[in-house]
Amino acid sequence: MLVLWVAVATSAQKDPLASWNEGTSKKAIIDFVERTTKAGSSDFIPLDERIATFDNDGTLWSEQPMYFQFLFMLDQVKAAEPSHPEWKDNAVFKALAAKDQKALAEIGEKPLLEFLAVANSGMSVADYDSSVRVWLATARHPRFNRPYTDLVYKPMQDLLSYLRANGFKTFIVSGGSIEFMRPWVQQVYGIPPEQVVGTISDVKFELQNGAPVLIREPKINFVDDGPGKPVGIYRSIGRRPVAAFGNSDGDQQMLEFTAAGPGKRLMLIVHHTDADREYAYDRTSSIGKLDKALDEALAKRWIVVDMKKDWRVIYPFEK
Amino acid sequence: MLVLWVAVATSAQKDPLASWNEGTSKKAIIDFVERTTKAGSSDFIPLDERIATFDNDGTLWSEQPMYFQFLFMLDQVKAAEPSHPEWKDNAVFKALAAKDQKALAEIGEKPLLEFLAVANSGMSVADYDSSVRVWLATARHPRFNRPYTDLVYKPMQDLLSYLRANGFKTFIVSGGSIEFMRPWVQQVYGIPPEQVVGTISDVKFELQNGAPVLIREPKINFVDDGPGKPVGIYRSIGRRPVAAFGNSDGDQQMLEFTAAGPGKRLMLIVHHTDADREYAYDRTSSIGKLDKALDEALAKRWIVVDMKKDWRVIYPFEK
Repeated sequence: MLVLWVAVATSAQKDPLASWNEGTSKKAIIDFVERTTKAGSSDFIPLDERIATFDNDGTLWSEQPMYFQFLFMLDQVKAAEPSHPEWKDNAVFKALAAKDQKALAEIGEKPLLEFLAVANSGMSVADYDSSVRVWLATARHPRFNRPYTDLVYKPMQDLLSYLRANGFKTFIVSGGSIEFMRPWVQQVYGIPPEQVVGTISDVKFELQNGAPVLIREPKINFVDDGPGKPVGIYRSIGRRPVAAFGNSDGDQQMLEFTAAGPGKRLMLIVHHTDADREYAYDRTSSIGKLDKALDEALAKRWIVVDMKKDWRVIYPFEK
Repeated sequence: MLVLWVAVATSAQKDPLASWNEGTSKKAIIDFVERTTKAGSSDFIPLDERIATFDNDGTLWSEQPMYFQFLFMLDQVKAAEPSHPEWKDNAVFKALAAKDQKALAEIGEKPLLEFLAVANSGMSVADYDSSVRVWLATARHPRFNRPYTDLVYKPMQDLLSYLRANGFKTFIVSGGSIEFMRPWVQQVYGIPPEQVVGTISDVKFELQNGAPVLIREPKINFVDDGPGKPVGIYRSIGRRPVAAFGNSDGDQQMLEFTAAGPGKRLMLIVHHTDADREYAYDRTSSIGKLDKALDEALAKRWIVVDMKKDWRVIYPFEK
């Protein structure tokens, strides 16, 4: 209680959502937090139940021209090519190496994910973690020419801090894999590794010369996307969120699951409307398609953030 | 930092491990906590990395004459019998209903778990949660004639509080299922549902008349026991514990995985040596067998708690 009081007292001194323009989105967020955290309010939510879940790709950081994890896996596959001569005639590999979006679309998601799972397996979890860190430190985004971890949304960072200052426990619930997020999300979002829910590959415990290691297996155990998100929440969190944040049809079920709980709830969709400062896409995009979830958000009056209008800044590096 | 200081200052006023007798076990625990939390100590562990994992059955509460979850599942199966005439000639069901330990041993663990998974599936996660709560409120332990949740270890409750007061984040990592633990562990151990790692059944997201529900499927997705425990830690926590607590060979790999980290680590085994106040069993027990892990604990000088000697009280209800 003491810590909360201190945090709230500090944040009251300035606007905790200064990166948001004034408008209905910002107002609805603040209204929700004030109603649910004020003692005696009919919408009060006990501290323990203040669970807030955030999609990552397209909700907390950018996802264009392609999911950043996909670009990482692609680079991993290309680096591994010399030791895999058998890939030479593999249709999936050829389409990947050529970044042939049409061929990839024809191949479909499942063979692609299976290929990537095999290509990214066999090493220890620690070695894989290192390869993620090296890639994030060296790779640059093709448009912004910056490390991918620079391309996080300042308004969402501020929102995460604001929620935590009001006693909410913040989780990531992403279709991305846990290994790709855990090395950097604490520093960038203030979310510790144990609050990251994501897609999971099988790993196996082994003793190598008496030392315990976890080895990645060539199989995806669980896909934390779409209807998988409420399942991931069930498996890793064990209670229903009171607030959920997404940007695509892959988040629809998480928001529905959140909305179905009793009492005051917050459901928010980030709508990518700013081609100048970021990207503009929705119903027909192959990455981060927002179609059915947009209809549901509008029909049910969930908050739909208009990035262009609602966000004073997009990225932390902007002046 | 403020909260830590307050907690430490408060706990310093009295012995936080008063339920433990003076001796090498208690001394080793306090020594570990003081060395790893004192600023400037060469063994200092940053706050974020103070992850402590606890087995549940036999480590935090009793597990005799049979794992309590097993008794629950058995009662569920018996209650469901009238609607399952096909079970009449099922060897697993007959052995279960008769509590025929010899027949069950011959059948083996896998067919048993599969039968229980099928028998405990088909309902929503919310209905299953209710059935766990009803059972825990009404069932009584055959020897102590008390609710099973009374049979938790006071010294371990105190240890959990002591660790948390010193900035450790406490997790359960159990072979038991997440659904069986989450309804009561917060009240009894102060561990929230999202810090419970356990065995996981498949569940499926469905819309029923527009309402989202999670339905239990007749399949175990992941067994969080033995070599599964480091895997469960990897999946749900994402970093290596600095302290781990167990009581059986099923905890051996979790303790090995913890010990393999750099820096000061705490590995502790609860040895059941008190037939009068609780139970005495180890190398030959079919429940909570402690054999290889005991040898390793002795060889590597992990803490081996002698319940009879080290614990002033066992259960909270004792005078």
